Amino acid sequence: MLRKQKPVKDSFVRMTELVLPNDTNTLNNLMGGRMMHLMDVAAAISAQRHSNRIVVTASVDNVSFRQGIKLGSVVTLEAQVTRSFSSSMEVHIDVWAEDIPNGTKVKSNEAFFTFVAVDQSGRPIDVPDAIAETPEEVALYDGALRRRQLRLVLGGRMAPQDATELKALFDLVAQAAEEDSSGSA
Amino acid sequence: MLRKQKPVKDSFVRMTELVLPNDTNTLNNLMGGRMMHLMDVAAAISAQRHSNRIVVTASVDNVSFRQGIKLGSVVTLEAQVTRSFSSSMEVHIDVWAEDIPNGTKVKSNEAFFTFVAVDQSGRPIDVPDAIAETPEEVALYDGALRRRQLRLVLGGRMAPQDATELKALFDLVAQAAEEDSSGSA
Amino acid sequence: MLRKQKPVKDSFVRMTELVLPNDTNTLNNLMGGRMMHLMDVAAAISAQRHSNRIVVTASVDNVSFRQGIKLGSVVTLEAQVTRSFSSSMEVHIDVWAEDIPNGTKVKSNEAFFTFVAVDQSGRPIDVPDAIAETPEEVALYDGALRRRQLRLVLGGRMAPQDATELKALFDLVAQAAEEDSSGSA
Amino acid sequence: MLRKQKPVKDSFVRMTELVLPNDTNTLNNLMGGRMMHLMDVAAAISAQRHSNRIVVTASVDNVSFRQGIKLGSVVTLEAQVTRSFSSSMEVHIDVWAEDIPNGTKVKSNEAFFTFVAVDQSGRPIDVPDAIAETPEEVALYDGALRRRQLRLVLGGRMAPQDATELKALFDLVAQAAEEDSSGSA
Amino acid sequence: MLRKQKPVKDSFVRMTELVLPNDTNTLNNLMGGRMMHLMDVAAAISAQRHSNRIVVTASVDNVSFRQGIKLGSVVTLEAQVTRSFSSSMEVHIDVWAEDIPNGTKVKSNEAFFTFVAVDQSGRPIDVPDAIAETPEEVALYDGALRRRQLRLVLGGRMAPQDATELKALFDLVAQAAEEDSSGSA
Amino acid sequence: MLRKQKPVKDSFVRMTELVLPNDTNTLNNLMGGRMMHLMDVAAAISAQRHSNRIVVTASVDNVSFRQGIKLGSVVTLEAQVTRSFSSSMEVHIDVWAEDIPNGTKVKSNEAFFTFVAVDQSGRPIDVPDAIAETPEEVALYDGALRRRQLRLVLGGRMAPQDATELKALFDLVAQAAEEDSSGSA
Repeated sequence: MLRKQKPVKDSFVRMTELVLPNDTNTLNNLMGGRMMHLMDVAAAISAQRHSNRIVVTASVDNVSFRQGIKLGSVVTLEAQVTRSFSSSMEVHIDVWAEDIPNGTKVKSNEAFFTFVAVDQSGRPIDVPDAIAETPEEVALYDGALRRRQLRLVLGGRMAPQDATELKALFDLVAQAAEEDSSGSA
Repeated sequence: MLRKQKPVKDSFVRMTELVLPNDTNTLNNLMGGRMMHLMDVAAAISAQRHSNRIVVTASVDNVSFRQGIKLGSVVTLEAQVTRSFSSSMEVHIDVWAEDIPNGTKVKSNEAFFTFVAVDQSGRPIDVPDAIAETPEEVALYDGALRRRQLRLVLGGRMAPQDATELKALFDLVAQAAEEDSSGSA
Repeated sequence: MLRKQKPVKDSFVRMTELVLPNDTNTLNNLMGGRMMHLMDVAAAISAQRHSNRIVVTASVDNVSFRQGIKLGSVVTLEAQVTRSFSSSMEVHIDVWAEDIPNGTKVKSNEAFFTFVAVDQSGRPIDVPDAIAETPEEVALYDGALRRRQLRLVLGGRMAPQDATELKALFDLVAQAAEEDSSGSA
Repeated sequence: MLRKQKPVKDSFVRMTELVLPNDTNTLNNLMGGRMMHLMDVAAAISAQRHSNRIVVTASVDNVSFRQGIKLGSVVTLEAQVTRSFSSSMEVHIDVWAEDIPNGTKVKSNEAFFTFVAVDQSGRPIDVPDAIAETPEEVALYDGALRRRQLRLVLGGRMAPQDATELKALFDLVAQAAEEDSSGSA
Repeated sequence: MLRKQKPVKDSFVRMTELVLPNDTNTLNNLMGGRMMHLMDVAAAISAQRHSNRIVVTASVDNVSFRQGIKLGSVVTLEAQVTRSFSSSMEVHIDVWAEDIPNGTKVKSNEAFFTFVAVDQSGRPIDVPDAIAETPEEVALYDGALRRRQLRLVLGGRMAPQDATELKALFDLVAQAAEEDSSGSA
Repeated sequence: MLRKQKPVKDSFVRMTELVLPNDTNTLNNLMGGRMMHLMDVAAAISAQRHSNRIVVTASVDNVSFRQGIKLGSVVTLEAQVTRSFSSSMEVHIDVWAEDIPNGTKVKSNEAFFTFVAVDQSGRPIDVPDAIAETPEEVALYDGALRRRQLRLVLGGRMAPQDATELKALFDLVAQAAEEDSSGSA
C-alpha cells in the first residue's frame, strides 16, 4: 500500500517572538536554552502540520550560537519539514534576530530537529511521505539521509562502516588515509 | 606564561527540577525544548564555576530524547566541564528522570554543550586549563578534541581532511575505502 | 517637508503560538486575557517594523471572542499596520486557531490596536506615512479614520458632532431621526 | 418564573499586583497586553462571583492607555458587575497605578469586559439579575444597554437603526444631520 | 525628634489571585511555595504603603497549611502592618480560598512577615510609627513585641532570659516548673 | 507491626538555580517569596524521596533572610529529611548564594519545612521511620521533637504545659521565673 504524500511547503511555520527580560542572561542577551526552547516549539508545530498528529522531540542536531541577541529584539523562526522516514520527520529551522530601532537583522542560527508522530497512547505512527519541490527543498531532502546516518552513528545505533552516505562527507578523510597507506606501501 | 589550572571536579553542578504543567505537551510529557533549557542552565553554571566568568552558550552537540518524562517527575541534571580551549569550555551533562511514587529512575539524556567565557563587554577571555583526574574524567577529556573537530567540520569552519582526530572515529570507513581501492588496484 | 512613506505590507508579522497549560482556564480553553496579550505583542512588532521605533500601546478597539480554543491548539496571529497619523499607527490583527490532530482551523478573532512611536525618553515621534496597495489594504486604510473618530468619541476626546466620518456609519440612525422629526413636523 | 436577583456589590473584586520585569517593555513600562491580561482575570473573578459559575470572556470594549506604568509600580484593579443579560454579564474595571516610593497614584485605565456563564460542558447558562443600588451603580447599569448595542453594531450583529439606545449617544450627530437637511430644505 | 505617625489601616492591601495550572502539584492543589510567594508580594506592598520606601523581606514566622486549594480557585490575601520598630515592620496576612462554582470559602492561612525599609543603596532607613485604632489592630500591635522576641530567640539573636514578653506565653510552663521544684523541695 | 526504616541520607536533594530577572525586586535582589518557593520545591522532592509518595506542604518554620542575593547569582539548596512522625516528615534546608564572577559564596538561609505524605485521593498515609546516622543527622533528629512541639503550640494545637520538650529551650526562662518566686518567698 502506498503512503500518503504531502508537499513539504504545507508544513511551513513562521514564529515571531519578542525577547523579554526573563529570557536573558546577565549581559542582557537571549539565553541559548531559551532559543532552543523556541526552536523546539516552532519545529514541533511544523511536524504537527506535516503529520496531523501529536509529535514528540526525538533529537536535535548540533546547533551553534554566533552572536548575542539583545533584550527587546525580535526573533523570527521559520521551520519546515525536509523529509520523513516512517514515523519520524526531520525539520529545518532558520532563525533571524532583528533589532528594529537600530535597523539590524542577522541570521543567528540554523538547526535540524527530528520528531516522531505518536498516537494518543504515545506509540509511533506512520506519517505521509514528504515531497520536496523547489531546488532548496530538494537539497535539504537529499541531505536528510546523510544527517540521519550521522545521528545514528553519534547515537551509537549505527556502525560507521554502514553509514554509506557519510562517506561522501568524509571522502577527503578517506582519500588522505588511502594516500597515507599507499605512501607507506 | 602558564595558564592557571583547575580540576574539572570543581565545576560539578547538580540541579534538581520538578516537571510542572507548563513544561509539558498534550501527552503530559516534558517538552524537548524545556529539557534543553534546563540543560543549558545547568551547563552554564558549571562553566561559570570553572572560569569564574560570565559565560555564553557557543554550541550544543547532537542530543537525543529517548522516552517521555511525565508531569510531576523529578529531573536531575549533573554537569561538569570536560576540557577547556583558550576561552571556551566543553561541558558534559547527564540527565535522569524519576517518577518517585512509582519508584522508577532512568537515564534520559546525555549531552555536550560548549560555552565561551566573556568579560563585562562581551569579549572572549581566557579560562584555566581543565585537569581531569578520574578515569571517567580522562576519557571525557580525551574525547573532547575529537568532538571539537566534529563541531568545526559540521559548522563549516574546518575542512574534513584537517580533522585528524576524527580519523579515529571513521577509521573503519577509511579502511573500507582503502580496501575498496586496494581491491580495484 | 514631506514625511517618509512606507508600504503597509513591510509591517506584516506572523506569529505562531502553542496554547500551554498556564494559558488556559478551568475548561482547558485559552483565556481571553492571554489572547489579548499575544495580540498586543504581534501588533507591537508590526508597529515597530513600520516606524523603526520603540512603540507603546495607546488603545485597543472592541474585541470579541467567539469560541473556545483548546489546550494544545496552535494560534496564528497576522498583524499589519493599516494607516498612520503623525506619531500613531493603527494595526489590524487576524487570529486563527488550529487543532491540528483534529484537522480544524477557524478564524477566532479580529482586532485593531493603536500604538504610538516614542523616542528613548518616551516622547512621541513622527512615523512614516503608510501606503496601502492592495484592495484589502485600501479598505482598511479608508476605514481607519472612522475607527479613529469612534475611539476619540468613546474616549471622551471628541464631540460626536465633530466625528464627521462616523456619520457614514450612523447614517441610518440619522435618517431615522430625521424621518421622526419630519414626521412630527 | 422569576430569575434570582443579586446586588452588584456582591461581585466586587480588588486585585493588587506588582509590575515585574517580564511584564515590561524596553522602556521598563508595563506592556499593554499584560495589563489587559490582569483586567481579564479581575473581571472574570467578578463575573464568577455574580454567577457562581465558570465564565468565559465574550468581549472587551475599547480600552485606552494613557501613560506608562513603571517597573516596580503597584497596580490596583477594581472590578464589579454592572448588569446581566440572560447568560452574559458586563463588568466594569477601574485601574490605578502607584509608584509608592515616589508617592504618586494615578487612575490609569477603565474598561468594560463581557463574560458568559457556562456549565461544565461549556454551554451558556442563565445568571441572576443584577441589582444596582448606589447612584454610581445605577448610572453604570443604565449605560449597559447602550454599550451592549454598540458592541452588537460593531460586531456586525445588529443593524444601526435597531440600536435605539445608541441614539442618545449620537443625538448631536442626528441633530446636526437634521439641521443640515433642514438647512438644505 | 519625634517620628512620623501613620494609622496601620493606611497600609491595608487586598490581593486576589486565580490558581493557574503551573501553581499546582500532582493533586491539582496550589503548592505551598507558590502560596508563600503570593503572601510575600501582598505583605511587601503593605509595608511599602506604610513606609513609602522600597522594602526587603527580613523574616517569615511559622506558617501552616491546613487544606488543599484546588486549581481554578480564587485566593484572596489581606495584608496590613501591625507595628513598626525603627526600620522594620511586621505585617499580618489573612488568606481565604474560594471555590466559587461550588460556593465554598474557607480561611486557609494566616501569617506574619517582617520587612525592612531601605534606601536606594539598600541601607535600612527609619519608618513611621504605626498607630493601631480598632480593638483587632490593638491586639495585633500588642502581640507584635512578643512575636519579635520569639523571632530573635529562634534566630539566635536574643537569649531566652531576655525575652521578657515571651514569659507571658510560657507562664504555664514556668508555673509547672516552679511547682515541680516546690514539690521536690 | 514494625514500620519500614530508611536512612535520612537517602532523601538528600541538591538543587541549583540561577536568579532570573523575574525573580527580583526593584533593587535587583531575589525576592523572599521566590526564595521560599524554591525551598518548598527542594524540600518536597526530599520528602517524596523518603516516602515514595505524593507529599503536601503542612508547615514552614520561621525563616529569616539575612542579605540580598543579586540577579545572576547561583542559589544552591540542600534538603534532607530529619525525622518522620506517622504520615509527616520534617525537612531541613540549607541555602547558599554564590556570585561566581565575584568569587563570593555565603550561607543565606536555613529552614525547616514539614510535609504530609498522601495517597492519590489526598488522605494521609504512613511513611518509613527516618534513621539518622551521622552526628549532624542525630542532632537534627533530636531537635525535631522540640520544633514539632513549638509548631503545635504556635498553631494553637498544643497547650504550652504539654510541650515537655520546649522546657529545654525555655529552661532559663523557667529558672528565672523560679528564682523570682523563690526570692519572693
